[in-house]
Amino acid sequence: MVGYSDHKQDQLRRLRRVEGQVRGLQRMIEDEKYCIDILTQVSAATSALQSVAISLLEDHLAHCVAEATAKGGPEAQAKVKEASDAIARLVRS
Amino acid sequence: MVGYSDHKQDQLRRLRRVEGQVRGLQRMIEDEKYCIDILTQVSAATSALQSVAISLLEDHLAHCVAEATAKGGPEAQAKVKEASDAIARLVRS
Amino acid sequence: MVGYSDHKQDQLRRLRRVEGQVRGLQRMIEDEKYCIDILTQVSAATSALQSVAISLLEDHLAHCVAEATAKGGPEAQAKVKEASDAIARLVRS
Amino acid sequence: MVGYSDHKQDQLRRLRRVEGQVRGLQRMIEDEKYCIDILTQVSAATSALQSVAISLLEDHLAHCVAEATAKGGPEAQAKVKEASDAIARLVRS
Repeated sequence: MVGYSDHKQDQLRRLRRVEGQVRGLQRMIEDEKYCIDILTQVSAATSALQSVAISLLEDHLAHCVAEATAKGGPEAQAKVKEASDAIARLVRS
Repeated sequence: MVGYSDHKQDQLRRLRRVEGQVRGLQRMIEDEKYCIDILTQVSAATSALQSVAISLLEDHLAHCVAEATAKGGPEAQAKVKEASDAIARLVRS
Repeated sequence: MVGYSDHKQDQLRRLRRVEGQVRGLQRMIEDEKYCIDILTQVSAATSALQSVAISLLEDHLAHCVAEATAKGGPEAQAKVKEASDAIARLVRS
Repeated sequence: MVGYSDHKQDQLRRLRRVEGQVRGLQRMIEDEKYCIDILTQVSAATSALQSVAISLLEDHLAHCVAEATAKGGPEAQAKVKEASDAIARLVRS
C-alpha cells in the first residue's frame, strides 16, 4: 500500500493530460507556432506537473510520514528529512 | 521563419524525452512505486520542460525581439512587454 | 514551544544575511549598477529565503505535524492539509 | 545610464518593502510565531523579490539588449546569452 492509493486514478488522469500537453508542444514546434504561445503551453504543463507533485506530497505526509512519526525514533527523523529534501528539490526546480 | 528554427530538432528531442518521463511517471503510479522516487522524477521532468522554455526564450530574444527593437516604436515595446510577461509566467510556474 | 525552537538562532542569522542582501540591492540600484549583476543578487536573496522556508518546513513536519498525526483524527488531517498548502505556495512563488 | 533609470524609485520602494518584510520575519521568529504564518510571509517576500527581478529584466531587454541587438554582431549575441542565463537563474531559484 502506498500513500497515494486513494488518488491513483486522479494522478493517472492528470499525467495523461500532461502527456497530451507535451505531445501538443511537439506539434507546435513542428508546425513552427509562435514562441510565446509555446511558452504559455510549457508553463501550463509545468504547473500541471507541480500539482501532481503537491498532491503526492500531501498523501505522502498524511500516510508514510505520519506512520513513521507515530512510531518515533531514527526512522521518523529519516522520513521527515527525506520529505524535506523532496520539497527542496521541488521548490528549486 | 520562427526564432527557434535552428533548434527545432533539439527541442523535439527534448520534448520526446519529457514525454517519455511523463509516461514513465504513469507506470510508476500504476506499479505503486515509492512516492519520493516519483517526486524525484517529477522534478526531473519539470527541469527538462524549463530547459525547453529557456532555450525557446533565448531564440525568441535573439530573433523576434531583436528584429522588433531594431525597428523601434510601439511594436518594439509590445514585443518586450510580451516577452517579459512570458518570463514572469515561467518564473512563477 | 514552536517546531523551530532549536534552529531559532540559525534562522535569525540567515534572515539578517538576507536583510543585508536586500539593503545591498538598494545600494546597487542607487549606484546604478549593471542590471545583470543586480539580478544575480536577487536570485541569491531568493534562494536564501527559500532555504529559510525549507528549514522551517522540516521543523514543522518533525514537530507540529508529527504531533498532530500521532493523535490522528480531523486535526491531523487539517495539519497535513495546512502544510501541503504552504508547500504549494512555496513551489509556486 | 542604466536600463532601469526610469524605474529607480519604484524599485527602491519595492526593495524597502522587502527589507521591511524580512525584518518582520525576524520579529516573527523571535516572538516564536506559528511556522505556517512565517512561511506565508516568506512566500510574499520571495514573490516581491521576483517582481523586482522581472521589472529589471523588462527594462534590461528594452534598453541594453535592444541597443546591442540593433548594432548586431558578436556583442548582440553575448547580450542575449547573458540575459538568457539570468532568466535561467531566476526560473531555477
